Amino acid sequence: MNELTISLDNSGSHPMYEQIYAYIRDEIQSGKIRAGEKLPSTRTLASHLGISRSTVDQAYEQLLAEGYMIASPCRGYFVCELDQLYQLPSRTQLPVAERHQESKEYRIDFAVNGIDKEGFPYQTWRKISRNVLNEDDGTLFQLGESQGEEALRVEIASYLHHARGVNCGANQIIVGAGNDYLLMLLHVILGMDWKIAMDNPTYTSASVAFQKMGYEVFPLEPDDMGMIPEKLEECGADLAYVMPSHQFPLGSVMPIQRRQQLLAWAAKKEHRYLIEDDYDSEFRYKGKPIPSLQGFDSHDKVIYLGTFSKSLAPAIRISYMVLPVSLMHRYEERGRNFSVTVSRVDQKILEMFFREGHFERHLNRMRGVYRTKHDCLISEMKKIQHICRIRGEHAGVHILVEMKNGMTEQEAVEAARKAGIKVYGLTEYCIQPLKDRDTATVLMGYATLSEEQMKEAVQLLAEVWGF
Amino acid sequence: MNELTISLDNSGSHPMYEQIYAYIRDEIQSGKIRAGEKLPSTRTLASHLGISRSTVDQAYEQLLAEGYMIASPCRGYFVCELDQLYQLPSRTQLPVAERHQESKEYRIDFAVNGIDKEGFPYQTWRKISRNVLNEDDGTLFQLGESQGEEALRVEIASYLHHARGVNCGANQIIVGAGNDYLLMLLHVILGMDWKIAMDNPTYTSASVAFQKMGYEVFPLEPDDMGMIPEKLEECGADLAYVMPSHQFPLGSVMPIQRRQQLLAWAAKKEHRYLIEDDYDSEFRYKGKPIPSLQGFDSHDKVIYLGTFSKSLAPAIRISYMVLPVSLMHRYEERGRNFSVTVSRVDQKILEMFFREGHFERHLNRMRGVYRTKHDCLISEMKKIQHICRIRGEHAGVHILVEMKNGMTEQEAVEAARKAGIKVYGLTEYCIQPLKDRDTATVLMGYATLSEEQMKEAVQLLAEVWGF
Repeated sequence: MNELTISLDNSGSHPMYEQIYAYIRDEIQSGKIRAGEKLPSTRTLASHLGISRSTVDQAYEQLLAEGYMIASPCRGYFVCELDQLYQLPSRTQLPVAERHQESKEYRIDFAVNGIDKEGFPYQTWRKISRNVLNEDDGTLFQLGESQGEEALRVEIASYLHHARGVNCGANQIIVGAGNDYLLMLLHVILGMDWKIAMDNPTYTSASVAFQKMGYEVFPLEPDDMGMIPEKLEECGADLAYVMPSHQFPLGSVMPIQRRQQLLAWAAKKEHRYLIEDDYDSEFRYKGKPIPSLQGFDSHDKVIYLGTFSKSLAPAIRISYMVLPVSLMHRYEERGRNFSVTVSRVDQKILEMFFREGHFERHLNRMRGVYRTKHDCLISEMKKIQHICRIRGEHAGVHILVEMKNGMTEQEAVEAARKAGIKVYGLTEYCIQPLKDRDTATVLMGYATLSEEQMKEAVQLLAEVWGF
Repeated sequence: MNELTISLDNSGSHPMYEQIYAYIRDEIQSGKIRAGEKLPSTRTLASHLGISRSTVDQAYEQLLAEGYMIASPCRGYFVCELDQLYQLPSRTQLPVAERHQESKEYRIDFAVNGIDKEGFPYQTWRKISRNVLNEDDGTLFQLGESQGEEALRVEIASYLHHARGVNCGANQIIVGAGNDYLLMLLHVILGMDWKIAMDNPTYTSASVAFQKMGYEVFPLEPDDMGMIPEKLEECGADLAYVMPSHQFPLGSVMPIQRRQQLLAWAAKKEHRYLIEDDYDSEFRYKGKPIPSLQGFDSHDKVIYLGTFSKSLAPAIRISYMVLPVSLMHRYEERGRNFSVTVSRVDQKILEMFFREGHFERHLNRMRGVYRTKHDCLISEMKKIQHICRIRGEHAGVHILVEMKNGMTEQEAVEAARKAGIKVYGLTEYCIQPLKDRDTATVLMGYATLSEEQMKEAVQLLAEVWGF
């Protein structure tokens, strides 16, 4: 073939070389120009089309680069053999996976994982963000340490030491974008095929994560003090996931004796660890915060997880994990390779938020806000104590409500739903059905609600639950 | 025991109740007050110490909450049995893992993974950041969609469609904090125990990630066109990780024929996928960008990975993965549970950066910047072409240099190091030693360097490499 008649559009909307490239490509794809066929020389085609040779050169170069043709020295350009197994798809959209939808049928949602929106220190956060961006010389846009920036880790270590009794150096801290991510990283660090014991009920997001990652999860029903050491020993797990400061969702605090028993369990074997999720330890309304389990650990057995999702905002996406010193070499070997998941700008903002004392002030303020909401909800709920009993108060941002009106959990949730109120059945947080508990129990979170909303909601609940 | 003599500090530096709590706790921990012993009533202790009863109540409540004592109705308070296996650690710092240190011995570093610092549009980014924070009503601080915000995904889908020929809906896109994270998520979605074929040499960070996650990695030496289908078929892998637009580090472009062969390989079995890492496809200096492999895929077999680390900045920590529709149900089932790793603020900033046309402008500007640097380095290197030959040019932000002076790779790297210049041996990017290649090859990245630095460096290299 020595001639190709291509109708070129001179309007300039598409470069000339691109039109030539696209024409020849399509001809090859559709089989109109066959494999092995010789294409005109660039000189011939240029003169045929009345355009400059460099334009044709450019088109041919693209065709060569993409492999539609080859150049054979002294012989010219030839069309390549294309594997016909593959049909080119049309450029229409492929069917799209269904959209994950949130229901909007509730007027008042006692969400257990929210925060008080107004409580977030927007002004301060914005001001620090502006300063951080203005003062940056570009460093913050270069890749940082995979563990997280040292300056932030030093702040976190100091906070953890003073507020939570956690015993660690900044170098044991790994900053990550959320607990789910940190559990993934932990999975890489610890390796596959672990058996893990978890409370039932528990923070199901973690149990699901472990299951999806291939760990065998043993759900253990806790007593009032938390995970039962005998059951733990029996089940054969070598990891145990606990929330000693405030069990989610039951709200129990693990007493010192039980903590020591769990630590002793972990100390018995080399490859045994306790994962302490200290998710909302900041909010305690009676007494001072319960110190962390990690702080009592002298055998280097506790993997400590903390987050700013509760204390600051879920969308901040900054969590941290404190590894025992004995796991640091495994982190170096297996985990260091994974780049940090939090931007340096965000890390710097949080560091400044700590350093300027805002975090402490914010926590104190939020404790007040949540205590007021907590007290309001408790006093409202007392009005219907003939219908239900409150448990798990004094800490966190939700309460447990045990039905005394003969309703099943599902009936209680459904009755509330009909009144436009969302409460959460305890069953939602169970890995498997509970054996030792027959009371219908629902959870009510108060972080996102105003006092007016809570008053209104409890009045409505009194009606639908009280018959 | 009915008396406890506690010396209280009235200065106010520690609350009274806390001093009482700490004193009794320490006495119990040290064994001075024994298990089973009865503690004084709150009334007795208060009058003994001459303080209010509510202060003692508060201290006792904390001791009860932490499990140091129990309250027995009508009988009083008793010290609990503590498991003596566990000694409380002293509050001194545990030994700290060694700090990861970067070497500073190089004056000029031909880093292959950097970006041009000056090129980052700080002003625009800051301005958008300010606007986003100022206009936000708090929504951005609530947890968003685990896939990433839809508005951002729509922008990415549109960009990918137009610039890369990627054929996808926004709902197939998953936004994540970096490629390493997305590979972890992919690991959860696909499940354990896959065999994956990778080019050797390759982007080692990915091969290490797969290995750490327990995948069996098959390193295949590519020819000039990329991964060889026969070798792929032979090795028994069902995943193949390729960089068709610009193989890292070799710089080769996979021709259409080879692409079709790989797609045909994937189409042969249900659970076979190609992972296309399109890491730096934005930067191509000759012709138009090579369309993605994903765009040619009509059998829904390509998992496409892209990042803003190269095109914007490494510390932005925003990457994305386009899943084939056939994998979306697995994502819903296994991956949806994992919360998003990029903050909504950052997602919103990037969305605005796209929507206001900054991304396109930025890419065009950076193509110019990198082309100039590229041309400068090439023309400098031509002066020493008797010593070494250039390969892998025309795209990306690094070149390959094959030594013709008889030096081994190690000798070339070492000679450069003595001159204060860092170049990178090809071996660093190998999963295992190369069999089919005997030429000593080094990589030189130019993204972070100025023209002056490159000129100076090549002069120095001419001396140390030219004898």
